[in-house]
Amino acid sequence: MVETTVDLAFIGRSARSASRILARLRSDVKNRALENIAQALERRQEQVLEANAKDMEAGRRAGLSEALLDRLLLTPQRLRSLARDVRAVASLPDPVGEMFDVRTLPNGLVVGRKRVPLGVIGAIYESRPNVTVDIASLCLKSGNACILRGGSEAFHSNTALVSLIREAIAQAGVPPEAVQFIPSTERSIVLQMLQAKEYIDLLIPRGGADLIRFVAQHATMPAVTGGIGVCHAYVDRSADMEKALRIVHNAKVQRPSVCNALDCVLVHSAIAGRFLPEMARLLARDGVELRCDTRALSIIGPREGARVVPATPDDWGKEFLALILAVKVVDSLEEALAHIERYGSGHTEAIITEDYSTAMRFLDEVDAAAVMVNASTRFTDGGQFGLGAEVAISTSKFHARGPMGLRELTSYKWVVLGSGQVREG
Amino acid sequence: MVETTVDLAFIGRSARSASRILARLRSDVKNRALENIAQALERRQEQVLEANAKDMEAGRRAGLSEALLDRLLLTPQRLRSLARDVRAVASLPDPVGEMFDVRTLPNGLVVGRKRVPLGVIGAIYESRPNVTVDIASLCLKSGNACILRGGSEAFHSNTALVSLIREAIAQAGVPPEAVQFIPSTERSIVLQMLQAKEYIDLLIPRGGADLIRFVAQHATMPAVTGGIGVCHAYVDRSADMEKALRIVHNAKVQRPSVCNALDCVLVHSAIAGRFLPEMARLLARDGVELRCDTRALSIIGPREGARVVPATPDDWGKEFLALILAVKVVDSLEEALAHIERYGSGHTEAIITEDYSTAMRFLDEVDAAAVMVNASTRFTDGGQFGLGAEVAISTSKFHARGPMGLRELTSYKWVVLGSGQVREG
Repeated sequence: MVETTVDLAFIGRSARSASRILARLRSDVKNRALENIAQALERRQEQVLEANAKDMEAGRRAGLSEALLDRLLLTPQRLRSLARDVRAVASLPDPVGEMFDVRTLPNGLVVGRKRVPLGVIGAIYESRPNVTVDIASLCLKSGNACILRGGSEAFHSNTALVSLIREAIAQAGVPPEAVQFIPSTERSIVLQMLQAKEYIDLLIPRGGADLIRFVAQHATMPAVTGGIGVCHAYVDRSADMEKALRIVHNAKVQRPSVCNALDCVLVHSAIAGRFLPEMARLLARDGVELRCDTRALSIIGPREGARVVPATPDDWGKEFLALILAVKVVDSLEEALAHIERYGSGHTEAIITEDYSTAMRFLDEVDAAAVMVNASTRFTDGGQFGLGAEVAISTSKFHARGPMGLRELTSYKWVVLGSGQVREG
Repeated sequence: MVETTVDLAFIGRSARSASRILARLRSDVKNRALENIAQALERRQEQVLEANAKDMEAGRRAGLSEALLDRLLLTPQRLRSLARDVRAVASLPDPVGEMFDVRTLPNGLVVGRKRVPLGVIGAIYESRPNVTVDIASLCLKSGNACILRGGSEAFHSNTALVSLIREAIAQAGVPPEAVQFIPSTERSIVLQMLQAKEYIDLLIPRGGADLIRFVAQHATMPAVTGGIGVCHAYVDRSADMEKALRIVHNAKVQRPSVCNALDCVLVHSAIAGRFLPEMARLLARDGVELRCDTRALSIIGPREGARVVPATPDDWGKEFLALILAVKVVDSLEEALAHIERYGSGHTEAIITEDYSTAMRFLDEVDAAAVMVNASTRFTDGGQFGLGAEVAISTSKFHARGPMGLRELTSYKWVVLGSGQVREG
């Protein structure tokens, strides 16, 4: 593997100076640059596919699992789908320049806030090369420069994608330095990035829990905390059985490998005797393993074709990212709330209930990025929530919470239009 | 001085558990608690004034300057004025519970954001005891618990104020643990606070540049960066002379000791010959010292009753907090922008101009919390901008920028109201 010595200060300075130009680009220029990226992804695939073939070969030699190899793989079809995503970003409204809270004060001053980009976004992510295109296009549209550090498995693919992106945006008159790539697979560079607060205004980690914890611990600049979703659904005594079954099934089975998938169902004891056997039957068809507390276990019992096992203490508060569901019987809303407060990760929590006051208390009292009544936890997503796209899901309360789209990649400045006003008191 | 051993973990846990109750308090309960504080400040002054007398005596013995002693002093009149401020906070709209960006999606899901408090606010501040009342009341209104660490000079005054506040809010049914006070004057406790990210969600430093730098360097939780204002006014060639004189005078003289006061005036060479002598005459009346670059010096010249001296390199980018103004002649808007980019602190920057395109470029290109056309830099203030009050002025782009009022002390959660929806794709 070819390694270049990385001059992070040089990369940082280039990104910083490009960010100043980017902040003032007109939407039509940014959109043309995005269209150029989309066209390049459709028409100039050879280089990218060749580079990806190298990564795939190295991955096979290194014994990567089939699942990881599949995440790494690029195909003409996947590149076309990436091009569609880039065009979708181009079609979103530009957050930069939006004015809000604009007022005319009694003294005639016009005061308001105007949205501006954050500056330079750093991203550290793992194997999937499509993240390179995703983050670069969302940063570009929101007027931010970016510094990308992808996983070593996808090194050649990422290098080829970045070179394609830089050429494409340069043709639209956007400085190619707006998209910076760390040309190294060394792990030590990650720590260096986390210390480069002079050059990086916001750091986005995308990957497993280990990466996210490492970033939270070592980042000297603001960093998105999130991506870890220990999601609960509380099936209240007044739940509509049919809705509860549909939601629990969807939240667990539709895409179990993502952070908004369901990890634990809490069932009120008054409905557990009817609900749990039906839930077990439904989930068994999809091969879901149930890890049950004593009461749930005694209700569900051993079951043909289904894996039903006693839960261990580790199963509470665990993000399974697999077809596994923890199951617990509770005697009250309060017990469910206490369990969620203790074990939830502040991502998404849902209640299934037909009782108005219970629903309102759950919405009020649960402290999470997203709280839901009678809906699948799988809806916590920038696209689903109407943001158009997302760079990350934040579980922090600072700056942005939940799905982060284009607007969440911006700040604002106060703008004051006067006609000679001075302050009296 | 009586010292208690400080159990920061105990204080932190108490604040955290009070914050959960506070987050769900109704506005009328919070407003009643604020009214109780106001009444106590008016009617039960003896304890506070006695405690303040001890601080004043200790301050005199320690040789504090008259200015510092004046900031420390509480009088019946000052307490009444504090009571008025608390009532003003009570009269502001409650940010908590506000719903925004609420939409009904095509699948019938109602999705929106609901404002919630941040949790626990830590505040580290210096001598003025009124900050104790200020921050406690803004935190209370915004549903946040707070942990206060005031300056050692005001230790007895702060202790008495906090005990008055806690009694007053308890009578309204608000847990007194919502307002925590660090009962120690040890400096080491500041570092301990900065490491207590488990208990403190946002840290607000209020004080001099040293304190703010120390916090920025050591805080492990989000901290407000700000309060340092190196503010410029650029007098463009097309400036209206009368407006320029009025604004520069007001921005420098009206209250020189605060962060939004003017530090440096940049004057276009085409207008400098007319503008600078008049400016010098006007500012001399208020005893302003001018520190001039060579060209400005040669225009202004020696002047009766005025201190006009050559600027040293240190004078550019300096926050004077005094009746001192740096003066420089520039040949273009570009030169002014470059000077501001290099020396500004990202607080407040103003242009005085009658030229439309120049005004628009200045607004666009200057990267600061507040940018102004034809208005005094002194307007950057929560009260002036219509936020009602402020806890701090942030120069960071993250979370909040510029004056931080009640809304800036909140986060939000996503609320989803469904009727059994599940996700398809």
